[in-house]
Amino acid sequence: MTKQDIFEQIQKKQSFLCVGLDTDLKKIPQHLLDEEDPIYSFNRSIIDATAPYCVAFKPNLAFYESEGLKGWLAFSKTVAYIRQRYPEQLIIADAKRGDIGNTSEMYAASFFDELDLDAVTVAPYMGEDSVKPFLGYPEKWVILLALTSNRGSHDFQFTKDENGERLFEKVLKVSKKWATDEQMMFVVGATQGKLFEDVRKIVPEHFLLVPGVGAQGGSLEEVCRYGMNKQCGLLVNSSRGIIYADSSENFAQNANKEARKLQLEMKVLLDKYL
Amino acid sequence: MTKQDIFEQIQKKQSFLCVGLDTDLKKIPQHLLDEEDPIYSFNRSIIDATAPYCVAFKPNLAFYESEGLKGWLAFSKTVAYIRQRYPEQLIIADAKRGDIGNTSEMYAASFFDELDLDAVTVAPYMGEDSVKPFLGYPEKWVILLALTSNRGSHDFQFTKDENGERLFEKVLKVSKKWATDEQMMFVVGATQGKLFEDVRKIVPEHFLLVPGVGAQGGSLEEVCRYGMNKQCGLLVNSSRGIIYADSSENFAQNANKEARKLQLEMKVLLDKYL
Repeated sequence: MTKQDIFEQIQKKQSFLCVGLDTDLKKIPQHLLDEEDPIYSFNRSIIDATAPYCVAFKPNLAFYESEGLKGWLAFSKTVAYIRQRYPEQLIIADAKRGDIGNTSEMYAASFFDELDLDAVTVAPYMGEDSVKPFLGYPEKWVILLALTSNRGSHDFQFTKDENGERLFEKVLKVSKKWATDEQMMFVVGATQGKLFEDVRKIVPEHFLLVPGVGAQGGSLEEVCRYGMNKQCGLLVNSSRGIIYADSSENFAQNANKEARKLQLEMKVLLDKYL
Repeated sequence: MTKQDIFEQIQKKQSFLCVGLDTDLKKIPQHLLDEEDPIYSFNRSIIDATAPYCVAFKPNLAFYESEGLKGWLAFSKTVAYIRQRYPEQLIIADAKRGDIGNTSEMYAASFFDELDLDAVTVAPYMGEDSVKPFLGYPEKWVILLALTSNRGSHDFQFTKDENGERLFEKVLKVSKKWATDEQMMFVVGATQGKLFEDVRKIVPEHFLLVPGVGAQGGSLEEVCRYGMNKQCGLLVNSSRGIIYADSSENFAQNANKEARKLQLEMKVLLDKYL
């Protein structure tokens, strides 16, 4: 999927919402546990309920891997379901991988060849040769961690170098030379607020994947004020706030409502800042 | 497994070798492809052939995930096999995970509860709350990336802060406060040679997991000269040099020979530096 494809979806749906499929057997409605594949059943309902209001789905691998074989199967089926029913949706594997070259190649093959995902999140600590193998696939995306939404982001990401440049800024500056803005996006947490301005000074044109709205307390308005560019340039993720809006048999309707609510907010913000 | 347990194994076997199970269907002897589960068959033979000469096994998750469901199954069976037949071996999941707290919790559950691994490699970029969830399991280990063996380690890990401290040094200094040397180890690449001295200034007592000997060109002698401590403090990994020593039907005998050769070198180095 190209940048233009993504922007067209955003305009069409008036939404830049990404729905995070962090599916946890302990949190899904308990009546689903009687189904043959509860994770997949839950995901299918959530996908159908929210697809009209979002442009991307982001399953987080951890939630699937923690269920072992069953989880891995549910993950593959979920990806195939989205691919078939909603081919216009961007599918992001939130995996935060990153290893030496030959190993990253295996991960890239896994995500882009085996599973036909559109994008994968990658960690920057090991540098260029750990990221490059993910960049050999046309219309596939690397989403590199730059400034994360969690408290621990302050441990290393803000470390200033001898020139006063913070580590997340160095990550942006160095890594944007590895690929174009047609192949790479960056993770910037919604909780970082006004810092989106500093990010945009370095990567004005790139798409940013923005977690941290909702359960983590980031402000959608701030993200847009400081982060939106001419092609929107934002994919804002919400996971728990949508998929666990309700744990009764009406969970899908309520996920639909929550996604719709966010989409309406996004429409207003697109009118205001685009 | 405690630090003392690991040291006792090292003394008993006169070896601090970790065998990396980076099992790739394209590289294993082709006659194994007729077997029902070629990855598992290969691993079992390699494990039996090398167990006398090593103290740890390190399957790299990427190689298993790239085979999808089959790979995941082969991984689980491999771990169970080592656990049952060679309970004295440390089993490290080379996964390089690291995510926000609730997600890291899922990974920790996956590796330590579901699979009963002893250790998992974790990336530091997201800071303390991404690592802490892995630390809640007694006698289980977090192995944090500090100074990796690849060329890309130079992109960010050597960035000096305002006080002249390099990022890998800051990672060591900050993270060693998160846990004791009974819960945490660090990855330091064999290719970094004399830098082991600088690492040891900060973490004199910790075990280090050392990739990069063999195919990547690191020197075992240098690693020991600059990195060994009173409890050895080193687990040196070799993957390709052992498991792909030979691709004929004699692959296991040749893996055995290569492991034995490294063990003999290690015995000499233990005599010299311990």
